[in-house]
Amino acid sequence: MKSIDFSPTATPCLLRTDMKQPVTYELIKKDSKTKARRGVIHTLHGDIQTPVFMPVGTQATVKAMKPEDVANAGHEGTNIILSNTYHLYLRPGHDIVKKAGGLHKFMNWNGAILTDSGGFQVCSLGKLRKITEEGVAFRSYIDGSKHMFSPEKSIEVQNALGADIIMAFDECAPHDADYRYIKESQARTTRWLKRCVEAHKNPETQALFGIMQGGFFEDLRRESAEEIVALDLPGYAIGGISVGETKDRYVGVLQYAVDLLPENKPRYVMGIGTPDYILEAVENGVDMFDCVEPTRLARHGMAMTNHGRLGLDKGRFKDDFGPIDPECDCYACRHYSRAYIHHLVKQNEIFGAMLLSEHNINFLVRLAENIRKAIEEDRFSEFKKEFLEQYGE
Amino acid sequence: MKSIDFSPTATPCLLRTDMKQPVTYELIKKDSKTKARRGVIHTLHGDIQTPVFMPVGTQATVKAMKPEDVANAGHEGTNIILSNTYHLYLRPGHDIVKKAGGLHKFMNWNGAILTDSGGFQVCSLGKLRKITEEGVAFRSYIDGSKHMFSPEKSIEVQNALGADIIMAFDECAPHDADYRYIKESQARTTRWLKRCVEAHKNPETQALFGIMQGGFFEDLRRESAEEIVALDLPGYAIGGISVGETKDRYVGVLQYAVDLLPENKPRYVMGIGTPDYILEAVENGVDMFDCVEPTRLARHGMAMTNHGRLGLDKGRFKDDFGPIDPECDCYACRHYSRAYIHHLVKQNEIFGAMLLSEHNINFLVRLAENIRKAIEEDRFSEFKKEFLEQYGE
Repeated sequence: MKSIDFSPTATPCLLRTDMKQPVTYELIKKDSKTKARRGVIHTLHGDIQTPVFMPVGTQATVKAMKPEDVANAGHEGTNIILSNTYHLYLRPGHDIVKKAGGLHKFMNWNGAILTDSGGFQVCSLGKLRKITEEGVAFRSYIDGSKHMFSPEKSIEVQNALGADIIMAFDECAPHDADYRYIKESQARTTRWLKRCVEAHKNPETQALFGIMQGGFFEDLRRESAEEIVALDLPGYAIGGISVGETKDRYVGVLQYAVDLLPENKPRYVMGIGTPDYILEAVENGVDMFDCVEPTRLARHGMAMTNHGRLGLDKGRFKDDFGPIDPECDCYACRHYSRAYIHHLVKQNEIFGAMLLSEHNINFLVRLAENIRKAIEEDRFSEFKKEFLEQYGE
Repeated sequence: MKSIDFSPTATPCLLRTDMKQPVTYELIKKDSKTKARRGVIHTLHGDIQTPVFMPVGTQATVKAMKPEDVANAGHEGTNIILSNTYHLYLRPGHDIVKKAGGLHKFMNWNGAILTDSGGFQVCSLGKLRKITEEGVAFRSYIDGSKHMFSPEKSIEVQNALGADIIMAFDECAPHDADYRYIKESQARTTRWLKRCVEAHKNPETQALFGIMQGGFFEDLRRESAEEIVALDLPGYAIGGISVGETKDRYVGVLQYAVDLLPENKPRYVMGIGTPDYILEAVENGVDMFDCVEPTRLARHGMAMTNHGRLGLDKGRFKDDFGPIDPECDCYACRHYSRAYIHHLVKQNEIFGAMLLSEHNINFLVRLAENIRKAIEEDRFSEFKKEFLEQYGE
């Protein structure tokens, strides 16, 4: 039987052997008027230029895209994607992915991968979930079967998947939870983090990032930061924001929370995919972000452009023979008209979702490229202002 | 505004200016033991090696595939696809496609295109349809609105779409219709064909093919053939077979009907996509065939292989890390495992439909390539026997 050759992605990359840690951060340049910063995250699957937008492949596939089209997104390419521990644990099962040789091989992705811990999903998607000191008991969204995720279980699953960056198992509390609840939850998240560090079997090949919690209470964020930074992990996320709160409260946390993290480690805000939220995060010194938004919008016929979103299902596009976005040079905009994509969307054709996914992923990857350029040229504030004026949402 | 560059497909081809007719057939070799024949159809959008399998793009898209992946299918590439007049008339409307510059530009396909007449669809899909001498009145499958397709209307729509090969408007009668009905229907189809010839506005750029009817009655097939061959059209289809009859009756018609058509014109059987039906058609001298089967099967998790169909949703594939078909070198088989595709199919991931569509289209395009090679080497009978023994369906 012919063996499978796992290497069609754009930047095939053998595991580096010259690195002592699986993930390190190199600061290249700081913007002089904001906290925005330009850097590189070195991983065993290649370098990642930051700030970076990471496309999401929940089920080991960035929906409706070939991996090489993800790898070629933007002008510089995409070298990191995110995948979801909760979903892959339930199906196909981490044992299957491990037998396949790990997630990179299973899904044919030669760049870096980050897996989340499942903490967010078991708290938000799991029905009848119950949080105890041990972990979170929940029921499968597929068949209702009972499961338990603990820090140990999450790390066991993430070790099996084999992503370059793995995340600590945390509780992402509701944005309207009270002080007492958040204090207890934050303290438990730190205890869980210590158990994650203990349970982690592959620190030479997989970097475990800690997650700061503490809700919208500055003293609790400080407590959380002190505790997790003391563990000297290779990177940190700011959790519990962009969970339904107002934008002011989101920005409010960013303004003090990012400073609580070490400068020599990458900083990550999970689940943000709208340009305004991304720009606010970058302005406050965040390096990494991800969101399902671009591919989800695509499957609903929506295109992201510099001038806001376009609903290609609208009747006015039926005889509009220009490209989705005249300022875009992605595959979809080079070869297909709004009229054609309107037709595909109206007919629920898969190719419509394919074209719009490729366009939207390109849009966000290019936004991150433009952000990096602006920081390099010390004009991030101007870029942010101009972009948002034009974007108008 | 940046203009759209319509040329990503594999074999960009400018309209030829050295041809007096839009479509001509060149016979290259005849098999000595069967009626199988190897030829070339010359079109303004390039040459088509026959026997040929034509992928179907009903809605101006071969479902779940980029046009360049269709163009690159097989080892020699694919240079002709089919699209449906009935569907494009209802949505987006032939006026829109015409404004886009024709179907080739609209869907970004630089090879040849064949459009059917809508005759089959208005008879089979149209609810409350009524057949008169004038044409067929039917209701839209989208919104129930009333429409009428006549020979003139079908040709008007096909002239607007601008395919290289267009089909006469015929009635495809049910396989169990009686002699009297078929006799009347066949005679009407000939009268309709004459109206199609009259109505055809672009004979210099679009070749109109006639369709033989006559059901399963040899005398009516002879009558039909005499009448349509007298019109000296650039190609002919055998209609009214593969419509639900037994395989014996299908082969029975082929055995005498193909001989009634001129040797210097291409011969086409519509809507066949299973290897056994294709091989029977080729054995009897047919050059062209098409079917939605490969992409439809793909969307249901089915792969076509030399050893029959594989339902990738089956549990036994969950930890099978070999390729779909060890004998296949398509993109899907080179880079992805059965276990991965099983996972995608179980999760209803679009990428599963993408990979299986590409595999199945490659399978049928390569089958046609192997058929051509067998005829060239004068071993079609042996090839057919070996293939079907292995295929086992």
